[in-house]
Formats: sequence, C-alpha cells, structure tokens
Amino acid sequence: MSLSGEISGGVHRLDIRVYYEDTDHSGWVYHANYLKFCERGRSETLKLVGIEHKALERQDLFFIVRHMMCDFKAPAQIDDIVTVETRFKQASGARFVLDQQVMLDDKAVFQADVTLAMVNCEGRPQRIPREILDAMPQT
Amino acid sequence: MSLSGEISGGVHRLDIRVYYEDTDHSGWVYHANYLKFCERGRSETLKLVGIEHKALERQDLFFIVRHMMCDFKAPAQIDDIVTVETRFKQASGARFVLDQQVMLDDKAVFQADVTLAMVNCEGRPQRIPREILDAMPQT
Amino acid sequence: MSLSGEISGGVHRLDIRVYYEDTDHSGWVYHANYLKFCERGRSETLKLVGIEHKALERQDLFFIVRHMMCDFKAPAQIDDIVTVETRFKQASGARFVLDQQVMLDDKAVFQADVTLAMVNCEGRPQRIPREILDAMPQT
Amino acid sequence: MSLSGEISGGVHRLDIRVYYEDTDHSGWVYHANYLKFCERGRSETLKLVGIEHKALERQDLFFIVRHMMCDFKAPAQIDDIVTVETRFKQASGARFVLDQQVMLDDKAVFQADVTLAMVNCEGRPQRIPREILDAMPQT
Repeated sequence: MSLSGEISGGVHRLDIRVYYEDTDHSGWVYHANYLKFCERGRSETLKLVGIEHKALERQDLFFIVRHMMCDFKAPAQIDDIVTVETRFKQASGARFVLDQQVMLDDKAVFQADVTLAMVNCEGRPQRIPREILDAMPQT
Repeated sequence: MSLSGEISGGVHRLDIRVYYEDTDHSGWVYHANYLKFCERGRSETLKLVGIEHKALERQDLFFIVRHMMCDFKAPAQIDDIVTVETRFKQASGARFVLDQQVMLDDKAVFQADVTLAMVNCEGRPQRIPREILDAMPQT
Repeated sequence: MSLSGEISGGVHRLDIRVYYEDTDHSGWVYHANYLKFCERGRSETLKLVGIEHKALERQDLFFIVRHMMCDFKAPAQIDDIVTVETRFKQASGARFVLDQQVMLDDKAVFQADVTLAMVNCEGRPQRIPREILDAMPQT
Repeated sequence: MSLSGEISGGVHRLDIRVYYEDTDHSGWVYHANYLKFCERGRSETLKLVGIEHKALERQDLFFIVRHMMCDFKAPAQIDDIVTVETRFKQASGARFVLDQQVMLDDKAVFQADVTLAMVNCEGRPQRIPREILDAMPQT
C-alpha cells in the first residue's frame, strides 16, 4: 500500500501504525486521535484523486469540519496497524458528507459520520468545485 | 480563576489559552483539539468535586468516551482565551451524559453532547459510584 | 496565579496541569509534550510583557525555534501540576536565548536551552525589536 | 516503501506525510512534531529488526528519551512528504545513541542527536539486551 492508501470498490483505505504519541495513560489510543486518523484518510483520498490542500488554497478554498457524530467502539493499542476507511456519501452546495471507520482486524474501533464544508479564508461557504465532486470515489 | 476553573449555577467553566500547538495551517484551532479542551474541562470538573483519575484507577475504574456529537460552529485563533463550559445532564448505570461548549466572547465556537462510560482495565462496564453522581454539579 | 502565570525575580512561572492528552502508554508525559509546555511558557512570558503573536505577525515578525538542547530528567504523570520556569539569557541581532525548566515539587523533570530566531514570513532573519528586548524579565 | 520503512546501508528511512495536525498557525510544521516524527522512525527501526514495544514491556523494559540536541534547520509544509533517517551510533550499558534527520527533497529540515535509556517500570536503568544491540543496523 502506498503512503496515500488505495481506492477500491468506492472505499479509500489507509493503513496507520499506532505510535507512542497516539496513546495515553490508559494504554489505549487517546480518543481525539481517531479524528486525526480520519483527517489523514480524507487528505489521502483527496490526494489520490488529484486534489492538494495547497492547490485548493491558491483558489482560496478550504475544507473545514462542520459536524461529526463519533462512536468510540473498542480500543486500539501501541504497535497496532489500523485501517481508516473513507466512504463518500453525498454532497450539495458547500457541504460534503462522508462515512469513516477505523478498523482493527476487520472490526470497527471507531466510526464517524462527517460533514465538511468548503469555505474561503473568511469562513464564507463556497460551492464545492464540480471536479472535486466528480473525482470522489463512488460506491 | 484557579487552574481547575470554577463551578457556578450547575456549570463548570475553565479558561484555556489557544497556543501555537492548538492551531493548524489554516490559522485556526485544529478541529480535534476542541475534544482535548473538553477533556480538560471534564478532568477539572471531577477534580473540583474531589475525584482524581489516579484515585479512580486504584479502584480499577476509568472513564472512557463512548459517543460524541460535535458541532464545529466558528473558528478560534492563537492568543484567544476560550472557556469550556461543562454541564452534567444525566447518568444511569455505567453511562454519564454531559453537554460541553467552548465559548469565545459569549459565542459558542464548539458544542458537543458527550457520553462517557465507566469501565475497568479490561474494558468491562462498571456501575458509576454513587459518590461521583452525588458530587456532580446540578443545574 | 493568572492564566498568564507570573514574573518574579527575573523568572516567569506558569502552572500547567497534566491531562490525558499529555500522557502516553508508558503512563508518563510523552517526551515531545515538554516542548509544548515550554512554548506555552514562552507565549505567556511575551503576553505578560505586552507582546502578542498576532501583533508581531501584523509586522511580519515570527519567532521560530532554531535550536534546543533538551534533558528529560524525570517523569511527570496525569493529574500532576508542573511549573514551567522561563529565564531570559541573552539576545543578539535575530537570536534570543532562554533557559527553561519544567518543575514538579521543586525538582526539574525537564530542562532545555532554547535558541529562538526572529524571521519574516519568508523565513529571513529579522532584527528583534528593541521594545521586546527591553521588556524581557531580567535576572 | 512499507509502513515500516526500510533499512539500507545502515540507515533506516521512513516516509511521512505532513498533515493538518502537524502544522501550526505559521503554516509550517509545529516544532515539537519533528520529535514525534523521529519517534516514529525509531519505533519502525525496532519493528523492522524484530523488536516490539509490547514484547519489551512484557520483560518490564521501556526505552525512554534522556537527551536530545535538536536543530530546526528549515520549514516543512502541509502535503510535503518528509523522510526520517535513523542512524544507530553507539550503545553502552543502558544507553543508546542515535542520529536522526528529517529530510525534505534531500535537504535536512531537522536534525537531532538522541540518547535513549532503557528502564524498568520504576524508571531504573536496565542493561540493553544483547539481541537488540546486535539487531541494530550498522553502518
């Protein structure tokens, strides 16, 4: 698997190793770090379909997270390899909805419904460019 | 305000400065860091009512985050002072429900419904001790 | 102690609680997080003497870390309150040297010699304004 | 390159993408995050030569960072791929010395001399097992 993961059957998959920095005192992954893992999955999905944050930014376009519904289902530990699965659900106007799961040995340890918004540098909603919508992996 | 914040009218409030570490390339607070701010608010609420993580752990009790419904409402920036507001909602058995908001100048920049579970070191649900429930600030 | 800590005898002191986010799987504070604590100490020192990152930025001035000599001396744990001590050592041109320690119960758990540089947004060295040098706490 | 990077000519190399989480308000990688990148390089070096943190722990052995001499040489940005190079230098008793660099396009953006110590769960120094020393890549 490349650094950018891979797309297959409408799903982007990215393998991530759990390091010391990801764990906390409980011995498990610190809860907020699953959101980082999901963001890596989204960045690599965009990268694989040809969209770079830096390029978006030159057009004064940024994706921001608007809403997340998060289920912390089971723990992951240091040395584990987890897989972030990213599924594109729908888009309309400035909004973009994804389903993301962090899998460990075929079991979801984290699941999130994620709503992104596209904004400009002043935070105003911007219509998501057609080429981004067309490029997203479809199930 | 002390390092532990303060409780008034059933609400715990904790002031937090936004530092470089909390921001990202966009110039705003990185989205996952609002979850860290909320966890600080929960830890200090517990501390203020006399409950320490280390003491819970000696009884083989840990709070874990089970579910979060997160709204990212507006940006906060470096040098800002935000206030985490923590409101206890309800508890039953091993579950604990809180409402948390991150305020900037009397406006919520982040809001979350948080469900915690009490578990032992093997991850099994444990009944939340009566003294914790009794100690929580009530509205 | 205020959110910005306090200056006394040429030393800035800032109290910081150790939260879940700061610890790792070992049960102790993750080593890189001591650098975050030191950065908070530096930001609050500047703030207390009247210098804001946002104001510097409007003059196209940024402090960056150039060099750090770090000793990790002892562990700190969750619930601990550590104190970051920041001592201004010397400055010349675009360089700024500080001594920083993270104390736990009057014992240093971390110590660093820190060299900062002042740069513009292109990363070019900039002379540190006289008013910043004059404002720094002197021993 | 696999998730664990690769060893060649006595050097371990690990590619890492710079994500939003790694950057700060300046638009560049937050300085303390280079230490995280180096720790990932060390973990994957150990993994590649057959040593897991979890297995060490079962023998009550932990590597901790004792000393780091860090040079922050140039900035890296979001979307960049940096390569962590880890070179084993020497070991004696409970100490382990490494040279680590973070490269961007064949230029070092960060360099550190790192001294690790092997300790038990009480923090007491422990002799590094012969098989770890023998397994380290030699230049």
